[in-house]
Amino acid sequence: MKVHFKRAGIIGVGLIGSSFALALKKYGIVDEVWGYSNSGTSSKKALSLGIIDKVAINLKELTSNCELILVAIPVLAIPDVLFEVSQYVDEKTIVTDGGSTKHFVRDCHKYFKYKNFVGGHPIAGTEKSGPEAGFAELFENSVCIITPIEDTDKDKMEITINLWETIGMKVYSMSPEEHDRIMANISHMPHVIAYSLVDSVKDKYFDGMRITKLAGGGFKDFTRIAKSDDRMWTDIFLANRDFLLSSIDDFQESLNRLKTFIEQKDVVKIKDFLIETKKILLD
Amino acid sequence: MKVHFKRAGIIGVGLIGSSFALALKKYGIVDEVWGYSNSGTSSKKALSLGIIDKVAINLKELTSNCELILVAIPVLAIPDVLFEVSQYVDEKTIVTDGGSTKHFVRDCHKYFKYKNFVGGHPIAGTEKSGPEAGFAELFENSVCIITPIEDTDKDKMEITINLWETIGMKVYSMSPEEHDRIMANISHMPHVIAYSLVDSVKDKYFDGMRITKLAGGGFKDFTRIAKSDDRMWTDIFLANRDFLLSSIDDFQESLNRLKTFIEQKDVVKIKDFLIETKKILLD
Repeated sequence: MKVHFKRAGIIGVGLIGSSFALALKKYGIVDEVWGYSNSGTSSKKALSLGIIDKVAINLKELTSNCELILVAIPVLAIPDVLFEVSQYVDEKTIVTDGGSTKHFVRDCHKYFKYKNFVGGHPIAGTEKSGPEAGFAELFENSVCIITPIEDTDKDKMEITINLWETIGMKVYSMSPEEHDRIMANISHMPHVIAYSLVDSVKDKYFDGMRITKLAGGGFKDFTRIAKSDDRMWTDIFLANRDFLLSSIDDFQESLNRLKTFIEQKDVVKIKDFLIETKKILLD
Repeated sequence: MKVHFKRAGIIGVGLIGSSFALALKKYGIVDEVWGYSNSGTSSKKALSLGIIDKVAINLKELTSNCELILVAIPVLAIPDVLFEVSQYVDEKTIVTDGGSTKHFVRDCHKYFKYKNFVGGHPIAGTEKSGPEAGFAELFENSVCIITPIEDTDKDKMEITINLWETIGMKVYSMSPEEHDRIMANISHMPHVIAYSLVDSVKDKYFDGMRITKLAGGGFKDFTRIAKSDDRMWTDIFLANRDFLLSSIDDFQESLNRLKTFIEQKDVVKIKDFLIETKKILLD
């Protein structure tokens, strides 16, 4: 089955929204894409770049005219937008989102009388933002998690899975809570850590030059994510606060264990620690 | 001035040693490269790959016949090898190394009656190891730190700088202690952290699958370095123990600050933290 929609609507036309629009077109999934952004800046930019075909004047116009809607805005702003969308949406439309946390899914699901909201999270991105950073291949070979709940419309859920698969993603389905617990560990933690590592060297210089200038590829790969959008990541840290704090605890425990082995100059235990982690990555 | 040597000798023909051999040839710096490795495995492999031209039968043969010697072996094994090399080395020869810590430089300097040992650290590498992983371009556009001390032979030091520059590196000169302090922060810490993060998720699964399988590019970039050679990194952690423990303390302090802001749901402080770190990276 190949999914097809006459018109898709993208709310928030940044990196994810514009890449999604481009991917929908590349794979022939839609005839047309409309966009809407709060300030109007990114949607107009996306229009001028040919990424979308029209800027909707408001959420009502967009929602009433599109059969597929992606909400791709900072995560704390999603619930209000979903509420407004739910007021205009008709039964045939699928509403999904790209939010990096899914804490709002159960509450927002209640807004949709046709049960046609399917929470989603394409785990793809770069450290860039804005419509000009978008590209159709962003999603290819990455993972997308969708987070339906017990009474989400099953057909809409299947179509949503099909849709993400069509644009190149490997799709997993799980509860919103499971999603947030996992993301705290593998997505939010690397950001917390990268920001903290950079912070810890901020006052360190060699010969008037920041020591970060002397860094090799390891440090650069490691801290690339600390250049990410600060509003987006502030939102995520707050939205997923509880799972994140628990992940930080787990990480601190692991770090303290390794630190103790180093303090004690315990060659065997250090080496075992390193060998074990390597195994996990190569598993 | 273009440096030229009749014959270079590489002790330890792994990623760094073989890349160095290939770079020396690419830039026409040497006529010939000899190699020596403890087990004989990597030097024979490098010979069969055409990376070196001869396997020396022992350190004496290599040292007596080469005008430029690079010691590129696990850091804790360097002092013993330098001692042996110093017994056979003549005045015209330059001896340098690629060790990731420079804690041994002052002691080993004393072995060399001609003051012709110049400690060095090309900050380049990949997560791979062995001669087959080597490539001539490994060093291009990366930083090399050399760590002469007060009475290191000045001519030999200049030639060593010139050498690394010729194969594409930006060279900085500093004391061994300064080097180790900086590397603890920007090179050794990312490894400590990456290993600890992977350790902290090692028992976490979704549907029988390790949650690391769901990770996006951030996590992968982040943990790539945790696939590095475990012996090498055990050595480094021990060799640079004191500076590293101090860097871990600094990092833990930064992490605890960010954690507290998240606990307190302090939007402004989280955002400031993120904005400040981004500034440092873009500086």
